[in-house]
Amino acid sequence: MPYSGALRIALVAPPLERVPPRAYGGTERIVHELVLELDRRGHNVTLFASGDSEPPANGQLIATVGEALRPTGFGGDASPYFYSTILDVLHRADEFDLIHAHLDWPGILLAHVSPTPVINTFHGRIDFPFAGRLFEDAPRGLVAISRAQAHLCPEVPWEAVVHNGLNLADAPFERRAGEELCFVGRIAPEKGVVDAIEVARLAGRKLRIAAKIGPRPDERAYYENVFMPALKAAGSNVEFLGEVGPHDRDRLFAESAASLMPGSWPEPFGLVAIESLACGTPVIARRAGGLPEILRDGVDGFLADDSQAMAFSVGRLDRLDRQAIRASVLERFSAERMTNDYLAVYRAMLDHMGRGVEPRLAASAARDRWAAASATDGPESEARQPALRTINAPIEAAASRRPD
Amino acid sequence: MPYSGALRIALVAPPLERVPPRAYGGTERIVHELVLELDRRGHNVTLFASGDSEPPANGQLIATVGEALRPTGFGGDASPYFYSTILDVLHRADEFDLIHAHLDWPGILLAHVSPTPVINTFHGRIDFPFAGRLFEDAPRGLVAISRAQAHLCPEVPWEAVVHNGLNLADAPFERRAGEELCFVGRIAPEKGVVDAIEVARLAGRKLRIAAKIGPRPDERAYYENVFMPALKAAGSNVEFLGEVGPHDRDRLFAESAASLMPGSWPEPFGLVAIESLACGTPVIARRAGGLPEILRDGVDGFLADDSQAMAFSVGRLDRLDRQAIRASVLERFSAERMTNDYLAVYRAMLDHMGRGVEPRLAASAARDRWAAASATDGPESEARQPALRTINAPIEAAASRRPD
Repeated sequence: MPYSGALRIALVAPPLERVPPRAYGGTERIVHELVLELDRRGHNVTLFASGDSEPPANGQLIATVGEALRPTGFGGDASPYFYSTILDVLHRADEFDLIHAHLDWPGILLAHVSPTPVINTFHGRIDFPFAGRLFEDAPRGLVAISRAQAHLCPEVPWEAVVHNGLNLADAPFERRAGEELCFVGRIAPEKGVVDAIEVARLAGRKLRIAAKIGPRPDERAYYENVFMPALKAAGSNVEFLGEVGPHDRDRLFAESAASLMPGSWPEPFGLVAIESLACGTPVIARRAGGLPEILRDGVDGFLADDSQAMAFSVGRLDRLDRQAIRASVLERFSAERMTNDYLAVYRAMLDHMGRGVEPRLAASAARDRWAAASATDGPESEARQPALRTINAPIEAAASRRPD
Repeated sequence: MPYSGALRIALVAPPLERVPPRAYGGTERIVHELVLELDRRGHNVTLFASGDSEPPANGQLIATVGEALRPTGFGGDASPYFYSTILDVLHRADEFDLIHAHLDWPGILLAHVSPTPVINTFHGRIDFPFAGRLFEDAPRGLVAISRAQAHLCPEVPWEAVVHNGLNLADAPFERRAGEELCFVGRIAPEKGVVDAIEVARLAGRKLRIAAKIGPRPDERAYYENVFMPALKAAGSNVEFLGEVGPHDRDRLFAESAASLMPGSWPEPFGLVAIESLACGTPVIARRAGGLPEILRDGVDGFLADDSQAMAFSVGRLDRLDRQAIRASVLERFSAERMTNDYLAVYRAMLDHMGRGVEPRLAASAARDRWAAASATDGPESEARQPALRTINAPIEAAASRRPD
């Protein structure tokens, strides 16, 4: 039977940033947009996220940690918090029609053991040595955020590709922008900020850089040993603004002739690109990752393969229609469109699998054994030993040295 | 009914070091001893470990990774390999009477979803901020390796405390050892090597240090900024041997008047202590962690609270009987005794719970829903869409922009 009514949906965010994040945090921004849209449409939304997150207007927030980890300066191994997030979700799995997890790899584990259908959106890169093992005998419900990301692991039976979407309607717009270029992102090797400086130099344009300094030691080293010397060498042609908030970022986009995304890595999607386009600002990007799916080459900007080609395309920016760029991205990458797509995935999963599913692991054995197990003492039986007693018992047993 | 016959036991090791490890790796050493002893006693042992591990003589090795991660220089986030280890175990859970995991925190997750009883031995320290959450509604089968470790989280319903054991019978022995002291361990702040130098100075004895340099950045910094200056200041009274193999380590113990363990942290057990005692060499240790459970104060060595007190006890070493020290530790901390203890835990779990258990999470829902779910298409049905088709569908759907 088709599911057309309101759904009870669990949205599961990582414990790293609040929902929505105060600054960086692409995954948490997308989760926030889904919470808003699904809630607005009358679905019953439960958000599993850090306790300082924004609760759904008509739903419930389940705190997986008191406060988001990263803003508190947490830099250790976060995996125990993912384990407890999975347990939190499993404890309440019965309360939902489906679970939409945004945890990447731990979500695979959740999907294998959950009695409720699980949709897993992968937000990060997936081309890791362990990917083959974790995608083995893959559960249903795996969603990529670009075809490029999906095709890194083509053997995975992807349920769907759903491009990200944001509420972009309030982005500022300038019909006549300035001559300057901009770079928005992070000072990290894969983001290509040094290439951006080179593009600006070759094109004879000024460049303004609004970027967070990556916190990892290798990113710090890159900042000091690679970025700073390049910035210094560029002199007054390049201005480094540091990290800026959303408002200043959008002003920067709106005033720029184009934004540069020369990063040479398989960027799974590229939220910066749609933010720039929403201000009407074309994007000149490397032909890599999800960017060719966002940018219509020659319409929304230009795709190119190196700094010289990108600099060459700067001379063709005048041909582009900033208003059309803005209109198209608001249509193609809205939170509404993304939510429509996910609802289609939800309904396809439910129509196919039913609201209750057999967990792929664990449950079949449990089924066979249930009759026997339930007839004897269960784990909650009062025959369970009190803690202290239990602690000492084997020690005494060892002392009495029973033969085996 | 009591389970007295041969058991089908899965032993699950972390993917970090092979079983047994080539050098460091306390957890993997203990797993190895259990494999040998359980196999020798006729149990059917399946070892989940890195593919370069030693297979059980009469059992099976299931490779969770091709090669152990740490010796290959892996220093990244290992959690995905723990996720896949859990999936590997769950895939075969039906084949075992019980699962004995040595994964620490991920094992909790396994215990919550496994249809086969899970014993979890915690090998590391457990006093982390996330411990409360992960121990919430704790599953049965949690085992600590010392009472000190267990009491860090007294609210946990520990199934048992089982002290580690090793096959120590081949350790060398010298009735008359030299006057020198030794320190064996790791150059890391919590291990107290600088305190050991101070103890030797106060006691007027020479000190030999056999220790690996910790690989973490903070351990590196400690080595360079704290340890090396202290070593230099001590002059010819302290000799640094670097990392040594098991044979040289045991020779060092056997030749020393005592070994020093001044580490000021809640060491969960302290394998170095039993290795030293097996050579007849007393241990002078800080009264911390599991050491008071290993060392009979005034018999196997001395427990003390600071460097001065430890140095004072050096003067009393002559009163101790090295042969009695050796005999006692071989009795109290043998692999045989440890295996007896674990078999008692295994049997108590099985007698109480039955061989099949209801997974605490997931399965009860699955049970209720099974009839309905099995009547419709399951996840393995051929109605499943081919991958490429599925990938494109939602994109096309988005383009046609159905109203929601």
